[in-house]
Amino acid sequence: MTLILSNADVEKVLTMEDCLSTLEDAYREMAFGRGVSRTRSDTVTPTVREDALYSLKSMDGVVPSLGVGAVRINSDIITWPKFGNSMRRVKVPAAPNQRYTGLVLLFSSETGEPLAIMPDGVMQRIRVGAANGLGVKYMARKDASSIAILGSGWQAGTQLTAACAVRDIKTIRCYSPSKDNREAFSIEMTGVLGIEVVPVDSPESAIDGADIVMCSTNTVDNVFFERYITPGIHISSIKRPEVSSEALRRADRIAVHTHDTKPMLTTTAGLEVPEHSEDKGWGNASDIDFKKLATLPQLVAGQYIGRTSDEEVTCFLNNIGLGYQFAAAGAIVYRKAVEAGLGHDLPTDWFTEDVHP
Amino acid sequence: MTLILSNADVEKVLTMEDCLSTLEDAYREMAFGRGVSRTRSDTVTPTVREDALYSLKSMDGVVPSLGVGAVRINSDIITWPKFGNSMRRVKVPAAPNQRYTGLVLLFSSETGEPLAIMPDGVMQRIRVGAANGLGVKYMARKDASSIAILGSGWQAGTQLTAACAVRDIKTIRCYSPSKDNREAFSIEMTGVLGIEVVPVDSPESAIDGADIVMCSTNTVDNVFFERYITPGIHISSIKRPEVSSEALRRADRIAVHTHDTKPMLTTTAGLEVPEHSEDKGWGNASDIDFKKLATLPQLVAGQYIGRTSDEEVTCFLNNIGLGYQFAAAGAIVYRKAVEAGLGHDLPTDWFTEDVHP
Repeated sequence: MTLILSNADVEKVLTMEDCLSTLEDAYREMAFGRGVSRTRSDTVTPTVREDALYSLKSMDGVVPSLGVGAVRINSDIITWPKFGNSMRRVKVPAAPNQRYTGLVLLFSSETGEPLAIMPDGVMQRIRVGAANGLGVKYMARKDASSIAILGSGWQAGTQLTAACAVRDIKTIRCYSPSKDNREAFSIEMTGVLGIEVVPVDSPESAIDGADIVMCSTNTVDNVFFERYITPGIHISSIKRPEVSSEALRRADRIAVHTHDTKPMLTTTAGLEVPEHSEDKGWGNASDIDFKKLATLPQLVAGQYIGRTSDEEVTCFLNNIGLGYQFAAAGAIVYRKAVEAGLGHDLPTDWFTEDVHP
Repeated sequence: MTLILSNADVEKVLTMEDCLSTLEDAYREMAFGRGVSRTRSDTVTPTVREDALYSLKSMDGVVPSLGVGAVRINSDIITWPKFGNSMRRVKVPAAPNQRYTGLVLLFSSETGEPLAIMPDGVMQRIRVGAANGLGVKYMARKDASSIAILGSGWQAGTQLTAACAVRDIKTIRCYSPSKDNREAFSIEMTGVLGIEVVPVDSPESAIDGADIVMCSTNTVDNVFFERYITPGIHISSIKRPEVSSEALRRADRIAVHTHDTKPMLTTTAGLEVPEHSEDKGWGNASDIDFKKLATLPQLVAGQYIGRTSDEEVTCFLNNIGLGYQFAAAGAIVYRKAVEAGLGHDLPTDWFTEDVHP
């Protein structure tokens, strides 16, 4: 049978602890060249709505030790509205019932068969959190106990869950520009984590004295600056422009998620895709060769040491996602969903064929 | 609703005529830079079976005028057995009930929603045939009436169907190494086409006097040589090594399907993938710059003339497939399947989400 799962099913079975440990094993396999991931591609054209573009995004990965491959697909209608001086990327829920279209297809690398089809939303957040959580595990001070989080949006929650799973965190302060948002987020996450999350009214108040600063924004501008740096701090980022180039230059050790620095972009002739044409990377740090930085798989495999003293300033940049993460996380979801009897079972024959393809 | 279709459904609704005309429009849109296709990628690792590899192949394309995007995925267990001195690529039907796994996911580029999921097998053959058929339409002599086909395998049938749809063909001769295969194929295709297909026992007997030679093999060796060339002939090929480099140099005009010359290959470290490491392209014709040849979209759009006299020797090389073809053909299949009430209707909500992906 091929299992059709919902986000609710994924949420039931995919814990942060499981995701961290499976990804850790999978990254190790990747560092040794056994697990493989195909660089994300974005295929972009006009759509009927004139202020939007259509983006068909895909990424593939295979984790041989788990016996799975995955293709993650996003079929998005995207707009780039301006908020004051800055521009944000906003996906439009244009599918029926105002929904988004993001799918993970999980295949057996032993038989080729489709094991499961599931939406990507819940898994997407957990795996982003898990990657930055592993950054914390391998780069932050062992005794780090305080976090400043910049941002209170849809990725921020799993950033905290992951960090709290790998360090004994006692205090968390949250800053984001909207008072309502940071207060609501702080109340919610205090409940989730059992650790008080305190909303504060400036980035400085959040960062002052923090061992770990997690940037989790949707910004196109820098939010973490050199002046925030104190000895021993760990800086964590999920989006290219969050950390200024001066701050990056002050870091003793920087690691990236992967050496894939950009998605492979194919567009209708003459089309400008805002985040591709305007995103300048981490603060235009053209003197930093990102291809020479350590990667998360290398950190996890012990091929690179994330920190050698309590004074070092470390930085982890989750630069781009990998289909590989969806294969690893998808393998746990599938196994546990089968055990729990979740989802809709469809005949595998519906998704396979007797005709030679 | 999201439609789950079978190969039988696709076969019911996708005629060669429809496929030729839709692809023709879509290629024109591509030549003008509006339609886009993402280069095929192959992600390859070991699998449990030691004489095989696992290959997760994907390709994407969007045809804005048809309002669709498609991702075509193959999740294959592949072996490379030797037959005498030559090696063939053989997919193993390792999925339950000895089946293959190849899927086309069709999305709306207006709403992002998944419109349909269908196997790729039937569509795959028809669109390969249609591409070479358009090569015949734009490059063969207008009065071409005889075809030699080299090969009698799973692609050969649609090659003939397509050529017969664009030229008034009176005689067809088929050569392939196995007497049984070429005879069975000839009987079958005589029935399909209403034109007698005559099996012959040498390539020379097939080619002698033919206006069009269609190579449709699974070979890793040359099958069409310079000595076969006569004035005005059109040579059609579906696989890199079929046409010798000397024959290519004698052609007055050569066109390729697309300027993507190779798939993007990502493999487990140290893995040798036979068709990538051993395939030397069209007969090692290193003096021919394939990137400078005309493409099928350019021929269709009139940006390049396929033939200027009855004496010219022309050649069309269907060098690599495009996700774009599956988007265009998928759009017809979807529209006609909805009209005919075919397939399994599943709630679109099963394949979309309210969580921001």
